[in-house]
Amino acid sequence: MIIVKRNVALLGGTGTIGQRFVKILEDHPFFDLTLIVGSRKKAGKEYGRAVHWLLGSEVPGYVKNLKIEEFKASLSEEKDIDLIFSALLADVAEKYEGILRTQGFAVFSNSGAYRMNNDVPILVPEVNPEHIKLADFQRERYGGYITTNPNCSTYGLAMILKPLEKYGIKRVFVSTYQAISGAGYPGVSGVDINGNLIPCIGNEEDKIRRETKKILGEYRKGKIRAWEIDILASCVRVPVRDGHLESVIMEMEENTEIREIKETLRSFKPLADLPSAPSRPIIIREEDDRPQPILDAYTREKDRAGGMSVVAGRLNISDRYLRLFLLVHNTIRGGAGNAILNAEYALKKDYV
Amino acid sequence: MIIVKRNVALLGGTGTIGQRFVKILEDHPFFDLTLIVGSRKKAGKEYGRAVHWLLGSEVPGYVKNLKIEEFKASLSEEKDIDLIFSALLADVAEKYEGILRTQGFAVFSNSGAYRMNNDVPILVPEVNPEHIKLADFQRERYGGYITTNPNCSTYGLAMILKPLEKYGIKRVFVSTYQAISGAGYPGVSGVDINGNLIPCIGNEEDKIRRETKKILGEYRKGKIRAWEIDILASCVRVPVRDGHLESVIMEMEENTEIREIKETLRSFKPLADLPSAPSRPIIIREEDDRPQPILDAYTREKDRAGGMSVVAGRLNISDRYLRLFLLVHNTIRGGAGNAILNAEYALKKDYV
Amino acid sequence: MIIVKRNVALLGGTGTIGQRFVKILEDHPFFDLTLIVGSRKKAGKEYGRAVHWLLGSEVPGYVKNLKIEEFKASLSEEKDIDLIFSALLADVAEKYEGILRTQGFAVFSNSGAYRMNNDVPILVPEVNPEHIKLADFQRERYGGYITTNPNCSTYGLAMILKPLEKYGIKRVFVSTYQAISGAGYPGVSGVDINGNLIPCIGNEEDKIRRETKKILGEYRKGKIRAWEIDILASCVRVPVRDGHLESVIMEMEENTEIREIKETLRSFKPLADLPSAPSRPIIIREEDDRPQPILDAYTREKDRAGGMSVVAGRLNISDRYLRLFLLVHNTIRGGAGNAILNAEYALKKDYV
Amino acid sequence: MIIVKRNVALLGGTGTIGQRFVKILEDHPFFDLTLIVGSRKKAGKEYGRAVHWLLGSEVPGYVKNLKIEEFKASLSEEKDIDLIFSALLADVAEKYEGILRTQGFAVFSNSGAYRMNNDVPILVPEVNPEHIKLADFQRERYGGYITTNPNCSTYGLAMILKPLEKYGIKRVFVSTYQAISGAGYPGVSGVDINGNLIPCIGNEEDKIRRETKKILGEYRKGKIRAWEIDILASCVRVPVRDGHLESVIMEMEENTEIREIKETLRSFKPLADLPSAPSRPIIIREEDDRPQPILDAYTREKDRAGGMSVVAGRLNISDRYLRLFLLVHNTIRGGAGNAILNAEYALKKDYV
Repeated sequence: MIIVKRNVALLGGTGTIGQRFVKILEDHPFFDLTLIVGSRKKAGKEYGRAVHWLLGSEVPGYVKNLKIEEFKASLSEEKDIDLIFSALLADVAEKYEGILRTQGFAVFSNSGAYRMNNDVPILVPEVNPEHIKLADFQRERYGGYITTNPNCSTYGLAMILKPLEKYGIKRVFVSTYQAISGAGYPGVSGVDINGNLIPCIGNEEDKIRRETKKILGEYRKGKIRAWEIDILASCVRVPVRDGHLESVIMEMEENTEIREIKETLRSFKPLADLPSAPSRPIIIREEDDRPQPILDAYTREKDRAGGMSVVAGRLNISDRYLRLFLLVHNTIRGGAGNAILNAEYALKKDYV
Repeated sequence: MIIVKRNVALLGGTGTIGQRFVKILEDHPFFDLTLIVGSRKKAGKEYGRAVHWLLGSEVPGYVKNLKIEEFKASLSEEKDIDLIFSALLADVAEKYEGILRTQGFAVFSNSGAYRMNNDVPILVPEVNPEHIKLADFQRERYGGYITTNPNCSTYGLAMILKPLEKYGIKRVFVSTYQAISGAGYPGVSGVDINGNLIPCIGNEEDKIRRETKKILGEYRKGKIRAWEIDILASCVRVPVRDGHLESVIMEMEENTEIREIKETLRSFKPLADLPSAPSRPIIIREEDDRPQPILDAYTREKDRAGGMSVVAGRLNISDRYLRLFLLVHNTIRGGAGNAILNAEYALKKDYV
Repeated sequence: MIIVKRNVALLGGTGTIGQRFVKILEDHPFFDLTLIVGSRKKAGKEYGRAVHWLLGSEVPGYVKNLKIEEFKASLSEEKDIDLIFSALLADVAEKYEGILRTQGFAVFSNSGAYRMNNDVPILVPEVNPEHIKLADFQRERYGGYITTNPNCSTYGLAMILKPLEKYGIKRVFVSTYQAISGAGYPGVSGVDINGNLIPCIGNEEDKIRRETKKILGEYRKGKIRAWEIDILASCVRVPVRDGHLESVIMEMEENTEIREIKETLRSFKPLADLPSAPSRPIIIREEDDRPQPILDAYTREKDRAGGMSVVAGRLNISDRYLRLFLLVHNTIRGGAGNAILNAEYALKKDYV
Repeated sequence: MIIVKRNVALLGGTGTIGQRFVKILEDHPFFDLTLIVGSRKKAGKEYGRAVHWLLGSEVPGYVKNLKIEEFKASLSEEKDIDLIFSALLADVAEKYEGILRTQGFAVFSNSGAYRMNNDVPILVPEVNPEHIKLADFQRERYGGYITTNPNCSTYGLAMILKPLEKYGIKRVFVSTYQAISGAGYPGVSGVDINGNLIPCIGNEEDKIRRETKKILGEYRKGKIRAWEIDILASCVRVPVRDGHLESVIMEMEENTEIREIKETLRSFKPLADLPSAPSRPIIIREEDDRPQPILDAYTREKDRAGGMSVVAGRLNISDRYLRLFLLVHNTIRGGAGNAILNAEYALKKDYV
């Protein structure tokens, strides 16, 4: 596939997710990040000065001196932008992503603003690629379209449930162990989280339930019928920098050999080759003490697919209860990385 | 009740649980700790020199110069010991607790060695006081008897389930967030746990299941019939010093007003006054981000009942799923404190 | 000494230091906290609802329902307040503490606003009690007076230097290991400090130098002549909740037996009995791995003097370099506790 | 330079430093790791099963199935080994490294066993390359030779002092903030270090002093005359996984423009190109809150030179006191990486 590189804009590039966008988009084969849009307070400053950089020693050279621009309604005319990535917080996202959609842009968003809208997909290309067809309906209505990411703790669950669906899942119970970076920056106070646990993350528990049911829902004629299986989640913030761990218990229709279940998960590779698509979407670890955030959050992969897999471990089944732990990198696959993969997929499917 | 103070011995006084015994037994109204028994390596040393003290600035003065003694079969003769506390590890506990029982001692143990024996109770005085009657059967057979503590993560669950039983519990799902001190000393390596999570704690998951079913079991004629309700647990070590948090989901027979459930838990005060019995065995917190280990593990109480309560929060019920978080201080109520309360209770019931 | 209890007001009671004031003032024998003054945003709310309580399970009952009041110029008339404690941030402190001083109040402040003013003492009763005489000069000028606390990392150093002065100190080098709570709330972001070190704490390094020189300065006729010895400090924030550790190297005029130095520090007890005065202002630990924040920050003492001592360890001298580590509880002795001790001392000396 | 790859053996490959050797030696252009020698307990096991792998998701494939061998006196005959890397602990290192030297091997060791021997260099190629000539004298005496690494906290200091020597250093004061991985595995207990500080690291303070003086010493005719300038160090273990931070104060002969000092440090590039030699041995950061372990320990560089630089920040000079913070990756440059760089340098200089 010959790719003509597209110019992309990033909305909200200085937060924990925004920084990941900047990092992953460096030398991207499909996209050139040429515009970073920020709040009035940051507009006019060079990115390298405006950002409190959290991802290793230095701000990537290619954006260091890029001036952050304020949002303008005329964005579409001034710059030769082909598509938009958004790392905005939900409250401002609603406004700006909406405007850009009406201007005909494809917006690949990490924000929650439009996630539960009927005509907006929560897209995970390995899980529900056909949901991208909702973009057709949005285009008719608005000119452009929005796709969203799931919440950072939802992605891993959806990825695991998809290939297991065929075994008959009756109910899903999830308890999360969520990293600090998931709360943004400055996010959680060091006084609160140091050596402590906070059993409360906004309305994350409800998001996991509703978003997972939508992602796994069936697409038919412009509508998504939510997955009917019930999901209960309990969410806790833990003193870990990156990587959300989840303890998952699934009540199944029947017992299946754990060996078969592992093989099903391992061989789940529904997506053709894309730069950010991991060669192993689901990695199964056999050790009895894995996955662990420090060791497993950043999965090593070719190119830019590092941190894009979900890692599962300690799988076992008994009395029809299938249990496992899963881990996702919350700011890569659970954030910027998924939106970029969505855009790569959209490009390939001629949606950009 | 007029109490003649009893001389007590402590087996294994230098570990994380042993130190808690030493601390709680200071100035105890019923018990005088007059003998600490340790391994050959520590025997002969003064306690204050043999211990790597972890509980605040200084080793309590009353044991600082007490010489640790090696275990001798003739323990019963040399010292005027009335009862035994044991903080031994399971492997040595089996041998020494067994010997002492045949010598006629009452042994109040924190170890797991005898927990699942048919004639040994896992005693939590608020939950299953009648299980102490198993001591009668042990006495007939061995001369003395052993009572054990539940595993540190089991206690809180059993305490919560007991008063809720009447509402009809169908299934219980637990995910734990367990503190480092629960692994003993040196226990978990700092390299492994710093900023990390370890989803593996020995065979803790099975212990929670089996012990809870035994504790909640029905005592009849020297036998305990295990609770029939199923329990599934997933256990994770987290970078927190003290305090085990647990996310609990209970499938109930029917929906009950959460207000009523809270009231039931709050008013669960089955135990008459004992020095280590908390005035509020179950504390309900109404904040939306509690309980937290740093704030709630050490519950303030009269006298020596600090850290002896279980703290529950974020209770809600929907679709017959009752959900909550609970927190216990793993080395106090989940360790030394419970064994001491057991001994207080036994004394009161003329079992000592 | 017969004490008539005084009514006290607290300015800024919801931050990390404000909460310590509230906690230490509970059941204080000299002071009744009857008024908490807060920002417009918090005014009108009950303290128990306005505060994000960080000091153990519950807001003390005596202030739980106390309504926070907004600052009014007429404070002096409406309420029968005898003296003021201030936990305000420096910027607002300058204004409000100044107004209250002109209204004739004695203000015992933790803020830095007036610290370096010529007529305001940085008071540490064990170290420079005579500096309180500056209050006389302030009273003449303004009606009332202000005393301030040293910065949280300065107190411990001043306390150690005072008794060692007689041995001839030539230069002092300090590197700090400062706890998160010292930055207030929310203060340092959890993303930044989790498993990390931040070698930058405002202009703390300069404060340590200037404040220590002032505290150890000589009072003569309304003036303080700064200590002439040079002090160099380097400051680092570390992932510890409470307790500032400091590595101190002192170049001395000559070698002295370390035994004598320890004895001098141990026997430094210049202050007569006051409720918050520790019986051992300087505690010397002989272990080779102490002091440690978790074990030593909260020093156990009679009454309300817990956490009011400085703990020193690893003392040694060679080639005229005296080296040691010291630890202070940054929000108790390095914060609210010192201001309360100042007020107790002022009361005793008839300055209130 | 055309390189014929050499077969290398690694002694002690399963500890924190041993794992780094394994990781850095993967695909090394000069060296083929073909033999891992371990304790009797590990001998016979495959490396992938014997190691508790701490460096990211998986044991490198090239050693996964390599059987660990027990040390044999006949090592030299059985295997075609050209040189030896050693990650042994000091006590066993003394014996085995000594034997191998007498068998004619060049041993590049991270252990402390031979560090202070007169004829063994503590080699840091950028700082004291000429010290390698001590190898000639060892060869005469023993057949082979040993070079050692400095202690993990010494390297960074020596690297900074070398280019600054010309400005006239009178005295050096260092306080360290040392990561947990520096204590090996299991090393420090999680109970001790979680949210805590331990002001005691073996006799590290003395090592820093003696080793730095030797490294900066002058080589003349087979002897090293120790640097005469005095160094005082205080060492603390902190709850950080990787990266030792050091606060350094140097008393200088005179004031120099800080700009010049920075330029001197930045342009210190004494070493010709080698695979593990960083292009910037000393990186100067201008931000006011750097270096930080999480952001700066692993310095990005070409090839295998990542983590091989020292990062300095917050430089300033006043009253002839030059102050700065420095950071080194303790298991890379402060461990395996330096030994590998030593071997690369030796190869280039025909010492292998």
